[in-house]
Amino acid sequence: MFYLIGLGLCDEKDITVRGLEAVKSCTRIYLEAYTSILMIQKEKLEAFYGKELILADRDMVETESDEILRDADKENVALLVVGDPFGATTHTDIVLRARSLKIPTRVIHNASIMNAIGACGLQLYNFGQTVSLVFFTDTWKPDSFYDRIKENADLGMHTLVLLDIKVKEQSEENLARGRKIYEPPRYMSIPQAVSQLSEIEELRNGGILTPAKTLAIAVSRVGGGEGQERIVSGTLEELGSQDPSVFGEPLHSLVIVGKRIHHLEIEYAESFSVDRETWRNVARDVYGCSLE
Amino acid sequence: MFYLIGLGLCDEKDITVRGLEAVKSCTRIYLEAYTSILMIQKEKLEAFYGKELILADRDMVETESDEILRDADKENVALLVVGDPFGATTHTDIVLRARSLKIPTRVIHNASIMNAIGACGLQLYNFGQTVSLVFFTDTWKPDSFYDRIKENADLGMHTLVLLDIKVKEQSEENLARGRKIYEPPRYMSIPQAVSQLSEIEELRNGGILTPAKTLAIAVSRVGGGEGQERIVSGTLEELGSQDPSVFGEPLHSLVIVGKRIHHLEIEYAESFSVDRETWRNVARDVYGCSLE
Repeated sequence: MFYLIGLGLCDEKDITVRGLEAVKSCTRIYLEAYTSILMIQKEKLEAFYGKELILADRDMVETESDEILRDADKENVALLVVGDPFGATTHTDIVLRARSLKIPTRVIHNASIMNAIGACGLQLYNFGQTVSLVFFTDTWKPDSFYDRIKENADLGMHTLVLLDIKVKEQSEENLARGRKIYEPPRYMSIPQAVSQLSEIEELRNGGILTPAKTLAIAVSRVGGGEGQERIVSGTLEELGSQDPSVFGEPLHSLVIVGKRIHHLEIEYAESFSVDRETWRNVARDVYGCSLE
Repeated sequence: MFYLIGLGLCDEKDITVRGLEAVKSCTRIYLEAYTSILMIQKEKLEAFYGKELILADRDMVETESDEILRDADKENVALLVVGDPFGATTHTDIVLRARSLKIPTRVIHNASIMNAIGACGLQLYNFGQTVSLVFFTDTWKPDSFYDRIKENADLGMHTLVLLDIKVKEQSEENLARGRKIYEPPRYMSIPQAVSQLSEIEELRNGGILTPAKTLAIAVSRVGGGEGQERIVSGTLEELGSQDPSVFGEPLHSLVIVGKRIHHLEIEYAESFSVDRETWRNVARDVYGCSLE
């Protein structure tokens, strides 16, 4: 059996009981280390499972799927994925490959940011499409996310914005010299995300990401409990001017609040706000929420 | 501590290790028995936890939250929720109440249909807002879902349609006589859902749910493994004409496929299709997918 197992959002204890049983039955266990970054180390997972893990970067999952699937018709093999296997990055390719090799496959689902974002208090029903925001460079500032957010905003829907992470980056020099030396991972911070959003708003001028008039909610380490999870709400302007430490440890995500919001959702998220008065004023004056 | 714990999608083993530890630490454990129906019995959960559960219907969660939260500042109390606590039905009310009583709260997330629907092979990124489809009666056919699906369809986005369930219904006679006798639970089947969708399409004529030209994917018991999980793809016409047993046991959900679909997604879902040729033809001719 080939198991594709979601690890959930935070640490070794977020695996499901079914997932843990499956892991313990496996002869080879791969840990995917690309789409997201688990908040704990491989070693801690290994100690918890009592099993060795093989790190698999995205390249390996894509190009060496036959090696991952080797003998999975005779023994149990697992690929562990942070969040859910069909979350932000899907794993349909390896499932298709398993299918064509007649290897039975079982997916063990878990929470991912795509549903746990509900923790910010906004109804999941009213989220539109999800977008990714990549690190801008001096010469490359892809802005198609803006059209997606605008489509959602025009319908009053919320947008979940997933912030870029860079792992296994090579410096230009190392790349040029063919040295496989990698830079430390980089995570986009909330202020940086806001700065990029504002830059494109200025360029495109659609009025959907105006810093002082757009409500947003920043989240990190959802489900991580006290001292880990952070939820901060405010205007884009407020979020952009906070010290990055306010938002806790990465990974960060950002929700752009749509106009189809209920006053109870505003009141729920108010307790996370940088400034209650500003939050309520913008909700009332710009979003048309009837608040007391 | 007040724990709000997601049970995941299928059975007692879908709880996370963290969730199970929390349950075992609690003096009172409530099981919410409204928003969804777990596929296993309360007794089986109790045996697995070694703890007694108190059934809490939606009424109780809404009106007796103070009783649920009683003493949660001194001992551990849990409310168990099928799926994720912030899935289709959110539990912000009771969290707000706990907050105002200064009771520390921890949410333990899990998979819900809102993210596990990715198992059908469509990118979660490209889902728009989610809609619910309620049982029509002779005199009550609420059709606002149509506007929502149209908004999504106009942007090419997919729509997750959650099908109604009726629990704790009283017959008119029992209701009139004030007898608290309840009918057996009812679950909307896929053919019934398709029939309702088609009825409103005929009425509204927006061309977004034309039976022979609209691709859809029916899912049930996602994550339930072999013999439980069912995924069936086809045109609405095809799905509507299948015997309901084709779709397995409830709960059922339906995805209306949007035009912003990649040919790899079509190919993935093809293996679940009622008829491969029809699936491919409609994908090519109506959705403009470039298939070989």
